[in-house]
Amino acid sequence: MTGRLIGVGTGPGDPELLTLKAVRALAEADVIAHFAKRGNSSNARRIVAGHLRLGVVELPLLYPVTTEIARSDDAYGSAIGTFYEEAAASVAAHLEAGRSVAVLSEGDPLFYGSYMHLHVRLANRFPTEVIPGVTAMSGAWSAVGAPIAQGDDVLCVLPGTLPDDELARRLSASEACVIMKVGRNLPRIRRALDIAGRLDEAIYVERATMAEMTFARLSERPDDAAPYFSIVLVPGWSGRR
Amino acid sequence: MTGRLIGVGTGPGDPELLTLKAVRALAEADVIAHFAKRGNSSNARRIVAGHLRLGVVELPLLYPVTTEIARSDDAYGSAIGTFYEEAAASVAAHLEAGRSVAVLSEGDPLFYGSYMHLHVRLANRFPTEVIPGVTAMSGAWSAVGAPIAQGDDVLCVLPGTLPDDELARRLSASEACVIMKVGRNLPRIRRALDIAGRLDEAIYVERATMAEMTFARLSERPDDAAPYFSIVLVPGWSGRR
Repeated sequence: MTGRLIGVGTGPGDPELLTLKAVRALAEADVIAHFAKRGNSSNARRIVAGHLRLGVVELPLLYPVTTEIARSDDAYGSAIGTFYEEAAASVAAHLEAGRSVAVLSEGDPLFYGSYMHLHVRLANRFPTEVIPGVTAMSGAWSAVGAPIAQGDDVLCVLPGTLPDDELARRLSASEACVIMKVGRNLPRIRRALDIAGRLDEAIYVERATMAEMTFARLSERPDDAAPYFSIVLVPGWSGRR
Repeated sequence: MTGRLIGVGTGPGDPELLTLKAVRALAEADVIAHFAKRGNSSNARRIVAGHLRLGVVELPLLYPVTTEIARSDDAYGSAIGTFYEEAAASVAAHLEAGRSVAVLSEGDPLFYGSYMHLHVRLANRFPTEVIPGVTAMSGAWSAVGAPIAQGDDVLCVLPGTLPDDELARRLSASEACVIMKVGRNLPRIRRALDIAGRLDEAIYVERATMAEMTFARLSERPDDAAPYFSIVLVPGWSGRR
């Protein structure tokens, strides 16, 4: 009997935004796996800390230090690919020994989550369950109280890493937009919003639903320093009907 | 002292996908409001049934029967506008009397939810909190185990009510797509996916995360009968890297 692989969405940051199902999975799992940068603690682990069994086996999956290599570089792709293969192998070893493994995933596991790299390598070999979570973007628009999309609105989720012209074009083309992976792309995102005529609608949200959350109209924000996991919202719906 | 308005996301259907915060809000609220069609029970209320206090005050908000009027018709707009005004007034009466009101919202309250119509009418008058929930689309791709978007993928959420050519164009233009409001639009959605060359990738999901859930590759599904709240997924990411 092999163990069960469980992708557990931890939600956007507030520990109370864990689902009942996630809490149960954390209580029942033999092993808790979590991704983190070497030297950093895992955000997802911090969110669930109050729900871990005393003495549960933990399996930290530590990204290689590759921030100094450009993402387009072959060396980056090679290093990260090797890392995911090794991470999958270490999870598989527990599963083969009959232990269930809960893999923590901030937000929702199959929505831009690191868990996906394990899922595609292991879900065909082991019984697998994915427990969805509240996404960072839902956390952001709820915390700000900004209705994001309604009725026939199109909502587009855009990585801030897109080329400038594509970003501007897509911002013009959809009623509602969410820009993820803001970080160092914020000056470019600001320009694209301006070109699309939507800078005044944009709301910048940092660390949504966490104690340290901040937000502001992007047009009123003085500087362009932003953590990678900040979000820009362009709500599509403002009205009564 | 006025009461607090709370938009409570109930998640996609599985009662275990309620958040801890939603459960607490339901236990504390003086009044539980929920939208339903006249003669039908509320889906959201069914999801939270196990968490309601015995004898809590309930405020059903019953849509007028307008299914026989086309949505584009002025009479529809007028009937539904009047309904939302009256619903907001009945919630406001409780808030003015100092009672907190939790408004149930399937999925996430500010993501295509009926709660939004109360939010825009009341959030500027009363202390308001929105508790985000797991969306129906997260429930769907998790239940099916389909990684939806990763890395630089663009994800587009498309109402099935969009014109045919726009639907096909947008399906071609984004790595990942989710089509909502399927229902009677399914034959048109199927054609648009075919034109965009993506019919083979599309997954049809009905009543995601509920006991009666079904799903299938859309290309292998024989008929075109679908409930309004079914979803079509076009995953953007299938690979290792």
